[in-house]
Amino acid sequence: MKIKIQILALATFLFIGSTISLQAQEISAMQAPQVVSPDVSADNSVTFRVFSPSANEVSINGSWMGFREKLPLTKEENGVWSVTVDPLPSSMYHYNFFIDGVMAIDPTNPHALRDGTRYASLLMVPGEGSEVFQLNDTPHGNISQVWYDSPSLGIKRRMYVYTPPGYDSGSESYPVLYLLHGAGGDEDAWTSLGRANLILDNLIAEGKAKPMLVVMTNGNAWQTSTLRNIPGLPAPSRETFAQFQGKFEKSLVEDVVPYIEKNFRVIADKDHRALAGLSMGGGHTITASITYPGTFGYIGVFSSGIFNQNADMEELEQQFLALKKSGVHKYWVGCGKEDFVMESNKRLLSILEKTDFEHEYFENEGGHTWANWRTYLSMFAPMLF
Amino acid sequence: MKIKIQILALATFLFIGSTISLQAQEISAMQAPQVVSPDVSADNSVTFRVFSPSANEVSINGSWMGFREKLPLTKEENGVWSVTVDPLPSSMYHYNFFIDGVMAIDPTNPHALRDGTRYASLLMVPGEGSEVFQLNDTPHGNISQVWYDSPSLGIKRRMYVYTPPGYDSGSESYPVLYLLHGAGGDEDAWTSLGRANLILDNLIAEGKAKPMLVVMTNGNAWQTSTLRNIPGLPAPSRETFAQFQGKFEKSLVEDVVPYIEKNFRVIADKDHRALAGLSMGGGHTITASITYPGTFGYIGVFSSGIFNQNADMEELEQQFLALKKSGVHKYWVGCGKEDFVMESNKRLLSILEKTDFEHEYFENEGGHTWANWRTYLSMFAPMLF
Repeated sequence: MKIKIQILALATFLFIGSTISLQAQEISAMQAPQVVSPDVSADNSVTFRVFSPSANEVSINGSWMGFREKLPLTKEENGVWSVTVDPLPSSMYHYNFFIDGVMAIDPTNPHALRDGTRYASLLMVPGEGSEVFQLNDTPHGNISQVWYDSPSLGIKRRMYVYTPPGYDSGSESYPVLYLLHGAGGDEDAWTSLGRANLILDNLIAEGKAKPMLVVMTNGNAWQTSTLRNIPGLPAPSRETFAQFQGKFEKSLVEDVVPYIEKNFRVIADKDHRALAGLSMGGGHTITASITYPGTFGYIGVFSSGIFNQNADMEELEQQFLALKKSGVHKYWVGCGKEDFVMESNKRLLSILEKTDFEHEYFENEGGHTWANWRTYLSMFAPMLF
Repeated sequence: MKIKIQILALATFLFIGSTISLQAQEISAMQAPQVVSPDVSADNSVTFRVFSPSANEVSINGSWMGFREKLPLTKEENGVWSVTVDPLPSSMYHYNFFIDGVMAIDPTNPHALRDGTRYASLLMVPGEGSEVFQLNDTPHGNISQVWYDSPSLGIKRRMYVYTPPGYDSGSESYPVLYLLHGAGGDEDAWTSLGRANLILDNLIAEGKAKPMLVVMTNGNAWQTSTLRNIPGLPAPSRETFAQFQGKFEKSLVEDVVPYIEKNFRVIADKDHRALAGLSMGGGHTITASITYPGTFGYIGVFSSGIFNQNADMEELEQQFLALKKSGVHKYWVGCGKEDFVMESNKRLLSILEKTDFEHEYFENEGGHTWANWRTYLSMFAPMLF
């Protein structure tokens, strides 16, 4: 690997400059002209550009579009393809180019993220509604990647634990929010896509949420961690998958909660434990809360519900009544009007209504998106503890 | 965002399946035929494949090749482009496709990583030499992303702290290795590209290294963290850059070390502090160790040296003599034969020899690569404490 040296005078020494950044820049330079992409205008319209004199077809798919939808870019004389999209609501998005059909991240954009197994380029459209998940100049909580033994599952597993500003140097004990991701995600999703740590930093700094720990587990019971993705690790067999199916909730309540309460300074009672999750994690939340009534005093179900149309509704009602009796301070439900889980969401609402379970329901625009889940977390966290 | 539902029977509920993974698979399906890439053969030759009936030219650059070198793929009748490379030494590599000149990650490979501002697809070639940085079934240490105030720099900054297995539940105090990245990197580099946590996990499990903390800072003094990359944060101006230049070593010794020794269970003396770094971080290591003699008892310089050809060698020798007098247990230097920093490395060696400074020098094949830096860490860590 040949690396160009940039000279930085520094005391008696010269140091190697931004070699790796330069590498990317060198590639861009070889592909001159320099392009800017993404290019967010003052009115929040966005222009995307990519240089390829020889491509036959270039298109883009963004998280603000339908999943299969593709918008073509048009080629200018200088070999730069571009397209401008209408002003987007202030939010965080991601997108991919398709270069002659091959999905690619934007080579000019140094900001990418992983959504499941797919890497995409990051687009931040600033403005109202996105402040709550920006990295602002507030005190920041730490994120720890914590390995723990899961006796229920028989494997070592990894979770992320957010500790609020001041935790390391203090002696106070805190309440805990257990926050669950959706299918396709892992223990990394709520911080990378959900920006849960930044949301908590900002809400705590503004006095809108109480300082709390946020514990983000891996909801795929057969996986040790997102590090499963490292080639060389065996993929789970169907047998393995079946073996672990349905055991996540048990591991959460019987392995994770005790581990946190032993190893972190937290308040270990129902009134200081909250549980919330999105999509599959909302299902985990429903199941764990009714299976272990009296464990969690605050419950949040985001874009989820009762997925099983043939569920024994009478049995479910009995379970919800037992949960209600255990003393839940807040049962909060959020769902987008266009979300494909709306029917499941309605089944959950009907049980809550039938059991006269005090709850709060929030319905907004949009569908099954991280934009909504970030919003739901910023609404739910201030209601806690 | 439309998401396909996969039904998983689970107690009384059905849950949403691996939606996001399915999305990627759906894209692949739309691009059928299914291709396997990268495809590592038993002899460690590797075949790369990408499907694009309409591309005019597809090539690949891998970290085992020269930086500007590109290897063309050839197109088969079914629209799949492929190339097979000769058996590669067992290691971890990364690579990019170029689709009609546009740099892309391999859309079939779910494993990518960030090298500076460039995302690349991950290739693991298994076998001897790579065991030390695999995720094995050993106890694992945790990584904490820790924010701290840096009075020397006047900003909040983020570092990664590896705590060894047993740290959370125990009461023991540990020694600390401060481990510095190179130019273009940040506080994330030593764990993502360097796999320092896995190297320590494995060495500790085998009894080859003592349990220790590893503190990985951000060596770009003007940056708060790798999160600078979030769009919307202002890029540093030249003035800002100049203002922070040369201050990293001060912040390391005067801000980071005290923070760690206050907030973590560590042994706070020279004999239990080690300092090592690669490339620019090797320069930081040299400067910090001679500027603050008596602070670090173990020093490792990887692929680095005295970059300033016009440095005042007499003054430097005096500083190295003072460092020697402070009591250094180990001064270890590693460099690849083909490394472009070899001349700087030789200047360091000549000072060590001239000052009769007891040291160990390791020279191996290869150049300025993470393959070498992972090797150097696996050799250096066992010599500590």
